[in-house]
Amino acid sequence: MVIVQGKPTSDSRQSLIETAAELVNARSYRTVGVKEICHRAGVNKGSFYYFFPSKQALMLAALDQTWRAFRQGGLHDCFDGARPPLQRIDAMFRFAAAAHEAAKDRTGRVLGCPFGNLAAEASTLDEGIRERLEAIFREWAGLISGALDEAVRRGEVRCGLDPDDAAWGVLGCLQGALLMSKVANDARFVRAAGRELVAVLATPSEGEPDR
Amino acid sequence: MVIVQGKPTSDSRQSLIETAAELVNARSYRTVGVKEICHRAGVNKGSFYYFFPSKQALMLAALDQTWRAFRQGGLHDCFDGARPPLQRIDAMFRFAAAAHEAAKDRTGRVLGCPFGNLAAEASTLDEGIRERLEAIFREWAGLISGALDEAVRRGEVRCGLDPDDAAWGVLGCLQGALLMSKVANDARFVRAAGRELVAVLATPSEGEPDR
Repeated sequence: MVIVQGKPTSDSRQSLIETAAELVNARSYRTVGVKEICHRAGVNKGSFYYFFPSKQALMLAALDQTWRAFRQGGLHDCFDGARPPLQRIDAMFRFAAAAHEAAKDRTGRVLGCPFGNLAAEASTLDEGIRERLEAIFREWAGLISGALDEAVRRGEVRCGLDPDDAAWGVLGCLQGALLMSKVANDARFVRAAGRELVAVLATPSEGEPDR
Repeated sequence: MVIVQGKPTSDSRQSLIETAAELVNARSYRTVGVKEICHRAGVNKGSFYYFFPSKQALMLAALDQTWRAFRQGGLHDCFDGARPPLQRIDAMFRFAAAAHEAAKDRTGRVLGCPFGNLAAEASTLDEGIRERLEAIFREWAGLISGALDEAVRRGEVRCGLDPDDAAWGVLGCLQGALLMSKVANDARFVRAAGRELVAVLATPSEGEPDR
């Protein structure tokens, strides 16, 4: 909690962003209001409106920050070019599974993907949020597509696979597995989905047709 | 709209259920209130509480009815035993794609899956709704698992595929594709995901390794 006196500080701004991301991820966008965010962040409403014209503007800033942290702190390692390309995809599923298992240990709940949750809730309600989420998912699909493209060139996936189409399919599988995990309050679906997906994507090697 | 005078009628109950399902699917559970549902259904609040103790109870009835209609009116045909098993799964994706394309033509929006949307929004907020959705998804995964089990026995999928695990994976892929379609407001992801998924699930036939 940041106690603010006088001019709003950049700490207050950061505290608002982190509090909004956390509350919305644990509940939903519509059930979290500016008043509660300010209270939990220890920032007064005047300071809120100094930084953000609206709850939507704060949510967009929180989305950008959550995405940057996830890309740099998680996806970057998963998509390390030193890994064989399909293992990068498997690593992404394992990273997501571990993060959701840890969150469940901490909160008792599989909270689901902050981007996927918000996409399901707000895509038809808030065009600004929908557009930002679409851009995030496009960047995410681009990472997957790059790995699949390399896998195609190395002959490690079924011939004829379209890396761009398949990347959206893989990202959809991850999002869907996170959603199934959320509704069952059990993160096991994520790990199983990654394992199955990589197994079906992989071209059987000669002499090892049933891998 | 059902104009109600005197004793609440079963038409009123049905109208409340249909109105709730439609409004929640187009927006979200939290943005739709009892007052609006009653107004749109042309049913007074007294009649509402004659049938349902709460908005949650109405939502559960709407979920059951939506699921029955979808299972009998859509999934039943897709999973017709006369189709080869992997074609049943492809049919499910094509049915979902067509339904979402039609809804977009009608409303301008890809609305996403009513079960998936609610799962993302309400699983951590309402245990009764989460449990009902989990039961619905389990029944749905059972249909897919049955088809995959038959595909395994017929040698039409990769050996070693676990029908139950893979069924949740397939359902996750469909849910994820519907979510990507919602966030991009473009149903094309559903059709593409079904095509790719069935292609990667299918065992290459002898003499046709790159199918």
